[in-house]
Amino acid sequence: MIKEPLQIIKIGGNIINNQEALAEFLLAFSKIDGKKILVHGGGKRATELAAKLGVEAKMVDGRRITDKSNLEIVTMVYAGLLNKNMTAQLQSFGSNAIGLSGADANVIRAHKREVKDLDYGFAGDVDEINEGHIALFLENNLVPVFCAITHDKMGQLLNTNADTIASELAIAMSSKYEVSLIYIFEKNGVLRSIEDDQSVIEQINLETYKELVSAGVISEGMLPKVHNCFEGLKKGVSKVIIGNPTIISNTNQKFTTLVL
Amino acid sequence: MIKEPLQIIKIGGNIINNQEALAEFLLAFSKIDGKKILVHGGGKRATELAAKLGVEAKMVDGRRITDKSNLEIVTMVYAGLLNKNMTAQLQSFGSNAIGLSGADANVIRAHKREVKDLDYGFAGDVDEINEGHIALFLENNLVPVFCAITHDKMGQLLNTNADTIASELAIAMSSKYEVSLIYIFEKNGVLRSIEDDQSVIEQINLETYKELVSAGVISEGMLPKVHNCFEGLKKGVSKVIIGNPTIISNTNQKFTTLVL
Repeated sequence: MIKEPLQIIKIGGNIINNQEALAEFLLAFSKIDGKKILVHGGGKRATELAAKLGVEAKMVDGRRITDKSNLEIVTMVYAGLLNKNMTAQLQSFGSNAIGLSGADANVIRAHKREVKDLDYGFAGDVDEINEGHIALFLENNLVPVFCAITHDKMGQLLNTNADTIASELAIAMSSKYEVSLIYIFEKNGVLRSIEDDQSVIEQINLETYKELVSAGVISEGMLPKVHNCFEGLKKGVSKVIIGNPTIISNTNQKFTTLVL
Repeated sequence: MIKEPLQIIKIGGNIINNQEALAEFLLAFSKIDGKKILVHGGGKRATELAAKLGVEAKMVDGRRITDKSNLEIVTMVYAGLLNKNMTAQLQSFGSNAIGLSGADANVIRAHKREVKDLDYGFAGDVDEINEGHIALFLENNLVPVFCAITHDKMGQLLNTNADTIASELAIAMSSKYEVSLIYIFEKNGVLRSIEDDQSVIEQINLETYKELVSAGVISEGMLPKVHNCFEGLKKGVSKVIIGNPTIISNTNQKFTTLVL
């Protein structure tokens, strides 16, 4: 069976924080042919709102500690302000976008992260993607736009890492589609030299990945990101691309492709 | 053709403001057999958030004047906090709820209200209900949960009266379904004597409606509400019910039914 292509694109805070860059990206995204899904992170609006409300935004190792007040804030900002404005903007560009949290149609069920060394609060780890309803939306020419809020099917909303949502979606949708997972971030891709944005490694396979890790080229923050990408590839995702926002419209822009 | 029944239930701030009453209502709602839609208003959370943020909540004749800051607040509270928490609660009760703003799947397109005597700001008046996608959700056993945020298909979100959303949905869905429109509020129905909550008028038709208006029994705030209900009935809605939250579970509770 030849599967139909599906592109799952994840954007992070750096685009979301810049209204012009976001509008430019959404316009380019709306022009992508075929089936597609957008996953967005949070950006600084949640932190700003927390500050205005006098709610402390606790971060440990780049992960937000989500107490009850912070959960309310990210629910308002991610699922409300950001998700609905992006959905409305995509609608204006002719994409029939539908904004979703994991609770909507039970598309992403998660559980509250167990307390081990650290209590992350209302942070969710994904248990199950309801690919049937997501496919129903796609087959009816809707463009799902996921925010990083899930639920536990017991009434509790949970704050969930957007990178993880994107990779879990990619894995689950691979049963029905030929999935390309595209991570958009501020750099041009995986770089041979962190200071040189032109030193993009254009293709990494499982073998060269191990060499790059040994050589220290892939390290620190990039290590778990690339590790997750290869996990996705092993579980059925066709390819993973890492690059800057222009790659979806500018064919001359370099990026990194990960393959098995 | 015999049309399948569809119940559209609108709840207002008085239930939403009370967490226990809301949970009780949502449990009862989840037990309703057959196709159903929930429409919810805002409640005091938006006003509270505005106060905390030092944003003035302007009200004229019971309608919110929605400037840019207030639009951000209602988008966060209605489409984010309230809609997603209700959706997650309904999921926990076994209803496959899907939270929607008008922008999602372009289900409700509106336009910014024209400035005449008063500039309502980003207040939306409904132009078009996309009943095809709403029916798609219903036919796939999803339970749409609408918040009072719409869009203009040009990228602008709009704050829209929840009563109006409910009646416009009821009219549009009448082409495919036998629609009952149920307004839940704090009183037991349309009352013969405003002070006596037991004086429920159990049935009002177009003729008795005119008599009740002439006699001053239906007046003030109830007047536009009941007028809208009859407009709905004239445009295809099968019946309109007005009552308190218990009517969907307690068969002994009186309520008002409006028919042509």
